[in-house]
Amino acid sequence: MRRIEAPLSPAPRVESVAFDGSSFPVPDDEARDEAFARVEERAREARAQGMRIVVVQGLGFVGAVMAAVVANASHGGRPRYFVIGVDLPTAAAYWKVAMLLESRAPVVSEDPAIQAYVDRGVRERRNLTAIADERAYALADVVVVDVQLDVAERYFESAGSVAVDIEPFRAAIRAIGRHLRPDALVLVETTVPPGTTAQLVVPTLREELARRGVTGEPLVAHSYERVMPGRHYVRSIERFWRSFAGATPEAGDAAEAFLSTIIAVDEYPLQRLGDTTASELAKVLENSYRAANIAFIHEWTRAAEAIGVNLFEVIRAVAVRKGTHDNIMRPGFGVGGYCLTKDGYLAQWGVTHLFGADVSLDVTIGAMAINFAMPRHSLELLAEAMPLEGRTVLLAGISYLSDVADTRNSPTADFCDLLREAGATVVAHDPYVRHWPEQPDVAHLPLDEAIGRSDAVVLAVRHQAYLTLDPRRLARRSGLVVLDTQDIVSDAKAEELRAAGVRTIGVGKGHWRRLDRERAR
Amino acid sequence: MRRIEAPLSPAPRVESVAFDGSSFPVPDDEARDEAFARVEERAREARAQGMRIVVVQGLGFVGAVMAAVVANASHGGRPRYFVIGVDLPTAAAYWKVAMLLESRAPVVSEDPAIQAYVDRGVRERRNLTAIADERAYALADVVVVDVQLDVAERYFESAGSVAVDIEPFRAAIRAIGRHLRPDALVLVETTVPPGTTAQLVVPTLREELARRGVTGEPLVAHSYERVMPGRHYVRSIERFWRSFAGATPEAGDAAEAFLSTIIAVDEYPLQRLGDTTASELAKVLENSYRAANIAFIHEWTRAAEAIGVNLFEVIRAVAVRKGTHDNIMRPGFGVGGYCLTKDGYLAQWGVTHLFGADVSLDVTIGAMAINFAMPRHSLELLAEAMPLEGRTVLLAGISYLSDVADTRNSPTADFCDLLREAGATVVAHDPYVRHWPEQPDVAHLPLDEAIGRSDAVVLAVRHQAYLTLDPRRLARRSGLVVLDTQDIVSDAKAEELRAAGVRTIGVGKGHWRRLDRERAR
Repeated sequence: MRRIEAPLSPAPRVESVAFDGSSFPVPDDEARDEAFARVEERAREARAQGMRIVVVQGLGFVGAVMAAVVANASHGGRPRYFVIGVDLPTAAAYWKVAMLLESRAPVVSEDPAIQAYVDRGVRERRNLTAIADERAYALADVVVVDVQLDVAERYFESAGSVAVDIEPFRAAIRAIGRHLRPDALVLVETTVPPGTTAQLVVPTLREELARRGVTGEPLVAHSYERVMPGRHYVRSIERFWRSFAGATPEAGDAAEAFLSTIIAVDEYPLQRLGDTTASELAKVLENSYRAANIAFIHEWTRAAEAIGVNLFEVIRAVAVRKGTHDNIMRPGFGVGGYCLTKDGYLAQWGVTHLFGADVSLDVTIGAMAINFAMPRHSLELLAEAMPLEGRTVLLAGISYLSDVADTRNSPTADFCDLLREAGATVVAHDPYVRHWPEQPDVAHLPLDEAIGRSDAVVLAVRHQAYLTLDPRRLARRSGLVVLDTQDIVSDAKAEELRAAGVRTIGVGKGHWRRLDRERAR
Repeated sequence: MRRIEAPLSPAPRVESVAFDGSSFPVPDDEARDEAFARVEERAREARAQGMRIVVVQGLGFVGAVMAAVVANASHGGRPRYFVIGVDLPTAAAYWKVAMLLESRAPVVSEDPAIQAYVDRGVRERRNLTAIADERAYALADVVVVDVQLDVAERYFESAGSVAVDIEPFRAAIRAIGRHLRPDALVLVETTVPPGTTAQLVVPTLREELARRGVTGEPLVAHSYERVMPGRHYVRSIERFWRSFAGATPEAGDAAEAFLSTIIAVDEYPLQRLGDTTASELAKVLENSYRAANIAFIHEWTRAAEAIGVNLFEVIRAVAVRKGTHDNIMRPGFGVGGYCLTKDGYLAQWGVTHLFGADVSLDVTIGAMAINFAMPRHSLELLAEAMPLEGRTVLLAGISYLSDVADTRNSPTADFCDLLREAGATVVAHDPYVRHWPEQPDVAHLPLDEAIGRSDAVVLAVRHQAYLTLDPRRLARRSGLVVLDTQDIVSDAKAEELRAAGVRTIGVGKGHWRRLDRERAR
């Protein structure tokens, strides 16, 4: 998911380098004309075979997979759509187009279905392609908008200071408007501030159509994905609940018809909402709810540590209450990823700037502040146990979620900064992550070597490899401090480690802290 | 659940008046001696028949029902326990003892099982009795503590100002200690600040035992009920999850053995926690979680109203996500009842005053402030629609929960105060409540009469009778304003009412507000 802007003429031999090091020359104007002619011809053929043309704007984490999923839709055993993924002809973005053209999924994921779907679309059925050219929007029966919309900063102190970087999104919509057929559906999947579809997308498209002298109201709808990274990524698109709404009844009908061909609606009936603002609000509310629930537990984590209680045990007892308490969160390391770290801000910005309403989402914005502060809390626990200056600390787990490779906005990056500020050297281990874009200078080491070199080990992510880790591998290094932020070390293992001269401390593990104090007396 | 204090000698002919108007003379010393002699004799006989003696301290909302439930426990078809309910010989409390002695449940509830259990214990099996005499604690194998522990005020601005009225609870524990056998189990069921059992109950009992020259460590445990008012009250004790912890391993074992005879542990296995502080924390965390979830939605309610969205529709769409979002709350009128309005404060007080910890539960305390502010929000919505001075407003529903009679801390009482401050006359209707102790001056009227007399109807509680209300009964009064705070009026009904000249406004119903504005243009 990258910004789509007016076509540029890149200087010759500009290279676009992918996350895995593959390098691709960004096409010049001539190459792009040739590519567009080919795509145009293939789209014409596909249409002649009864396919409709879907263009996905943005080949990022959602768009690339959405393109492959749409290409996989069939009727009567034959492809239903010819799908064109579009991204920018820039060094930062072009590699996504180029990888897809080579039938390589341009996202890192633990779900093998993604590559299988890409292969099926690009190689077998030949109904999936990609291009770095906005003229592709002219070919579309449906444009699916999957570009990013970001906040201006990573963190805001208060509801009043929230700022959103809306212009790149507007430019992307404008690019569509420059080419769109007036009868084509524009389905916005991007998470946007509530009000954006009605107040920004529709007027912008209307303006661009009018500029071309095209009459007719554009067909615009909003529907939000609920993609989960990990092993069931594709399933989280195809087999999961979907809400949507049209800017007009006709647009709602068109969106309903399109989504019904992509999603298993027999089992997961679509939910049509009253207006696009409701659909937009639902998405940011969902993620804000989760962020607020996490913040609530962070607050009680501090309390439990102060009063000597094992909060994990308490939460297991509380979570038996099905339907009311079973979604209660666990103490942890903070919040990462793309959604929970920004969607509350998008909500506030829409309320304030699109509606001019005097409503502050203080609980929501405050919850995000608490979540962002959690890596500092882990640092304080560690600093309480040992001086950090000159020490080496192993960060065991750097992704933002267990058993995935995704490091986007991972709180481990903030923790790493804090450790370095405190004078520590950081080394890393993560069975899923080879390259850490947010912290490129950190050395990645095999686990035993890393333990051997470290004064402290921070278990930061609940990866399977750490849950099954034999404590003897830690116990070899006497004097080590283990900071468990994810309820990985059981009380029995903590005792075993203690016997070997390894001290364990933990987020939410107030009972360990109490025992430490009692022993110190 | 009332405070238990040192025995008093009430002046003769003091009457104790129950909620239903029944009046009972508070017994004098002589009458109490006689009553105690009878109970002592009956307990001796029961013990000879193999029963153990359980004394329940406090015959309030939980204690009275707990006593009946314990009396209902059997083994081999015979009663397992002889149960003595204890409350104070005061005008405020004695009626509970007297009613139980007459085999009348001293609580109002929609659950017919309560009266059935009381009849079975008092009349049929004759293993349930009551007395206003602390000497009963001397007879106990198990004392169950179900007295109240209250906050000093109803509302606190900040974490730092939270105050708890701990002394009555300490006095109640001291009364037990004056008589307790050292081998008896004291099971605290009262919701207490975390740390209370270990730091207050155990030392107080130890002190009282020592004062009597009795050696031995008292057996003390904590376990919290999860009683739900309404039609399944008894089931919420007998057939629901229970956590508990002992102050010592022996006390934990004794509590486990006792609870296993009361609760269907085959289906709802007991959860033993590491220490009593964990058990206490679990209870206040559970209720604070719910209060925080409600506050979160209150905040988004204001946002949805401001941007023209129907938040109920959005929440239905969000709640399909099982396990993560299906417990999301609905917009409403505020929070009432005994637990959600105080337990966050108990948590903060324990952390600050029992542990001296510098941890502020800001999210939790802030959430409670938001919840307490919701009746004012409803008032503002109503005042936006019509001047309130000199008008008559019907409060339809006054309990704090749908389809129950319980008015404890109901936000409708606050709303009633606000209406009166604004110069309105309040009339009330509630199919479950005949007498409103918090607002004794409000006239209760039959529904149609009340509608006929009113300028506005506030649907404040989601009682069944309102959900099925024929809108024509409201439509008869043209010019009426209906404030729906509980998603009772559908969009179709709102249109029907509008056609009859009745305007509907609603909490969380941003789309109605938007339509109103569009029509006003």
